[in-house]
Amino acid sequence: MVWWGWGKEAPRPRLPEPATEFLTAQLELDGRVRPPVELEAVKLRAPRLAARVRDRLVAAVGGDGVRDDRRTRVLHAAGKSYPDLVRQRRGDCQQAPDVVVFPDSHAGIQAVLDACSAAGVAVVPFGGGTSVVGGVDPVRDRFDAVISLDLARLREVVEVDEPSLTAVLEPGLRGPEVEARLGARGLTLGHYPQSFEYATLGGFVATRSAGQASTGYGRIDELVLGLRCATPTGDLDLPPLPASAAGPQLRELVVGSEGTLGVITRAAVRARPAPGARRYEGWFFRSFVEGAEALRTLEQAGAAPDVARLSDESETALSLRLSGARGPALRLGALYLRARGYAGGCLAVAGWEGEPDEVARRRARGAALLRRAGGLSLGAAPGREWHRTRFSGPYLRDELLARGVLVETLETAAQWSQLMGVHQAVVHALDDALHTRGTPGLIGCHISHLYPSGASLYFTFLARQESGAELEQWRAAKRAAGAAIKAAGGTITHHHAVGSDHMEWMAAEVGATGLAVLRAAREELDPVGIMNPGKLLPGGV
Amino acid sequence: MVWWGWGKEAPRPRLPEPATEFLTAQLELDGRVRPPVELEAVKLRAPRLAARVRDRLVAAVGGDGVRDDRRTRVLHAAGKSYPDLVRQRRGDCQQAPDVVVFPDSHAGIQAVLDACSAAGVAVVPFGGGTSVVGGVDPVRDRFDAVISLDLARLREVVEVDEPSLTAVLEPGLRGPEVEARLGARGLTLGHYPQSFEYATLGGFVATRSAGQASTGYGRIDELVLGLRCATPTGDLDLPPLPASAAGPQLRELVVGSEGTLGVITRAAVRARPAPGARRYEGWFFRSFVEGAEALRTLEQAGAAPDVARLSDESETALSLRLSGARGPALRLGALYLRARGYAGGCLAVAGWEGEPDEVARRRARGAALLRRAGGLSLGAAPGREWHRTRFSGPYLRDELLARGVLVETLETAAQWSQLMGVHQAVVHALDDALHTRGTPGLIGCHISHLYPSGASLYFTFLARQESGAELEQWRAAKRAAGAAIKAAGGTITHHHAVGSDHMEWMAAEVGATGLAVLRAAREELDPVGIMNPGKLLPGGV
Repeated sequence: MVWWGWGKEAPRPRLPEPATEFLTAQLELDGRVRPPVELEAVKLRAPRLAARVRDRLVAAVGGDGVRDDRRTRVLHAAGKSYPDLVRQRRGDCQQAPDVVVFPDSHAGIQAVLDACSAAGVAVVPFGGGTSVVGGVDPVRDRFDAVISLDLARLREVVEVDEPSLTAVLEPGLRGPEVEARLGARGLTLGHYPQSFEYATLGGFVATRSAGQASTGYGRIDELVLGLRCATPTGDLDLPPLPASAAGPQLRELVVGSEGTLGVITRAAVRARPAPGARRYEGWFFRSFVEGAEALRTLEQAGAAPDVARLSDESETALSLRLSGARGPALRLGALYLRARGYAGGCLAVAGWEGEPDEVARRRARGAALLRRAGGLSLGAAPGREWHRTRFSGPYLRDELLARGVLVETLETAAQWSQLMGVHQAVVHALDDALHTRGTPGLIGCHISHLYPSGASLYFTFLARQESGAELEQWRAAKRAAGAAIKAAGGTITHHHAVGSDHMEWMAAEVGATGLAVLRAAREELDPVGIMNPGKLLPGGV
Repeated sequence: MVWWGWGKEAPRPRLPEPATEFLTAQLELDGRVRPPVELEAVKLRAPRLAARVRDRLVAAVGGDGVRDDRRTRVLHAAGKSYPDLVRQRRGDCQQAPDVVVFPDSHAGIQAVLDACSAAGVAVVPFGGGTSVVGGVDPVRDRFDAVISLDLARLREVVEVDEPSLTAVLEPGLRGPEVEARLGARGLTLGHYPQSFEYATLGGFVATRSAGQASTGYGRIDELVLGLRCATPTGDLDLPPLPASAAGPQLRELVVGSEGTLGVITRAAVRARPAPGARRYEGWFFRSFVEGAEALRTLEQAGAAPDVARLSDESETALSLRLSGARGPALRLGALYLRARGYAGGCLAVAGWEGEPDEVARRRARGAALLRRAGGLSLGAAPGREWHRTRFSGPYLRDELLARGVLVETLETAAQWSQLMGVHQAVVHALDDALHTRGTPGLIGCHISHLYPSGASLYFTFLARQESGAELEQWRAAKRAAGAAIKAAGGTITHHHAVGSDHMEWMAAEVGATGLAVLRAAREELDPVGIMNPGKLLPGGV
């Protein structure tokens, strides 16, 4: 992964030329390309870990597992949030960890936590480093030093239990590795967040993530059956029981704890037979309201596809523009939709996966319901196109940043009865905030996951960067959206987690008593407060 | 509810005469019937609540909400576990609560908790009082007084959100009331534990219960979306979000907390359209192993019925005997099964619910898979018979107790790969334990709930009571079964909860660190330790 953005240096998905032209005109960009600073120009503080602590870390993980070279420290200085990337591209890495530690076992992690608890050194667990909410940013808090604890060396498949369709996996396995290793046994986890190529299993669990097919396969919290978590005061070891009534479900305390309680060193997950067939297709609706009602009907009838996405009017138009369509193709498509009465409507993607006959049966039932609810089938091409480009977003974001674009996404979930209210409130809040900064934006939204009681909304917005005030501009928009979400009855995050960016809304999310309980759990497991400080829980330990 | 057993005095389901004869012979019973003592003969201590505390309780809930008459105290002196009933029938109610308090609002409950925290009075939340694990037994712990907090006056349907298919319910609503109130809106919760007729919504949530149709409708933890919990230090108020990645899921800390953290004063639950069709039928398998494999195949293919039960060989034979079949009918059935090659096999009940066409489609797919897996269809009669008698167990238990029978049930869940091992281990442990006491028993088991990764096992055992050592005999069998379950990889309880009876296994269930976290949460919410002491967490606060 490049230290200033997403993925490898090359080859990379790129914006088509017409898309760039469109954005340059719409957002009044200056056309300049701003590369990130050179690695050598990045500002870093000298590491300041005491020698005796470093010796203990070396004893815990071996000499080659403790690194403080420039590239390693810069790579671990941030995740991949918009503010992270703005700072990284500028070369502002003063918060880089003092060292990066690469343990290769549960015992090694325990030894690192022991050493850091004793010495008062902050520990930031690091999986794929793909957090978009500041979740892996090194925060020293009240400590003199901070280490990044990179789990890349823990990537074993510990066990596959075929009769039970479960697997025990180590946290450093990246998405594609999980699928390759399970795929060799004819199985799949089916967890495909946009960060899939780099994100890790441990990160999925620690951030309570959802993937693009989670409407069908379930969120990670529905896929994790057991886990082992090394904490500063001992191990939490929860076996993969199918269900239990033995008290509160402690697993749900670790899932989503974002490294603030300890380090997940293995997880037992539910696997499924790898799908023999995948069918993705495009549907069109006259309006977002009509499409949302169609998806609600499907979901509540138990007929939802595994992937279900519905763009609002604005995102539908924007996606078409950013896909590079122009001239005859664009006009032809628009003419067809207008002729059918769908001008200015909304694109949906529906995807079914599984055994071929079940896919055919489920797709037939789903299609009938979609049609009855007003949907117009566009065939497989839009589905294939979505599937082809489904991990491209973070690459294109780098290009947009280089062109001086503020680009951010945020997500929520709410009950069906409140969903359209949340949608409108957030669009208005973002629109107002960007106008107020003098940088009117493009704002789109899609429904990304369905539940019987509601759905998630995923917003994307683009605006011209306010040169010299990039972070203030971003914060103003983010704050406006967050306030609108909470006021309208949504959750502050459906699958990006809390990190540092959503911390200020945690009190609204779980209440003062809820925060107090989370803090009590943290104080029990991590009395010194070394685990990922400055994340999740406002006000520190 | 009668104070010495289950349900009303009359009419009651009764054991058929041939069943009584069979048990009398098999268990070497003496044929005597032992009625419970008269209410007036029950031993009670004088209430010892300080007058100033009583005044505060009266101020909190009104004078008619604070009761200490004999019948009320005796009714709240125990739940409905085997040891509870043995003690109640003997008239041993010395642990009865000093008073029983009936609040009618969230604010009233807060005021009661404030008063009891200040005065150091233990509080035992009481829903239907149907716990079979000692969950509502009044334990004074280190306090001078204990009250039972009966939630019978909180039984409003606060809200029904039809587009979202959710409802906000108060905790005192009993199972039939929940169904009647939702049914009037065309909805169902679909939660039918054997205690359905008396158990309450708050009790379902507090004990993390499962119902007979939970394979289809989901366990209560899958049906609860939000809740409000009054604790001694403040309210936990968690709105019904369809999903969230905002940190750990605090709802899962309250679900299953068994009144040790606070009192659930409302819950937002998922509802479904009331089913237009119900189809229950009987299937037969050559062996428990064959039947379990058939159910695993169905579940993992996403084709499980909503109700799925499979008795082992022993329970199948026992059920037939206890149903009262004898003579020609018994011989004819046995001849038919022998002719088909199923002699000595296992009975399964499969039930489908929902829209008629979906029931037909799902049933056809399920039946094809069951047949392919070796199942023999017995048609609708066995399914109807199971459905008719599905809440009878606790009534018949009273009759068995009167006849001097030790009768107990216990349940676990484990991964499919370990399920048959757990089954054998528990059967052997119970068999050994009962033989050792000189009271060889009848032991049966059925699979009661299916999950992709495993299933639950529900054991029933019967033996002649050891006169004068009824509780020691019970404890020996229970301990042997619990040890076998934990050693073989099962959970100590799948849906009966922990109460006091399973407390000794909590350390094995969640580990020392897990217990420490649960205690920390409890200390945060209930620093004085008044909430349901002596339950769930061994060693008290």
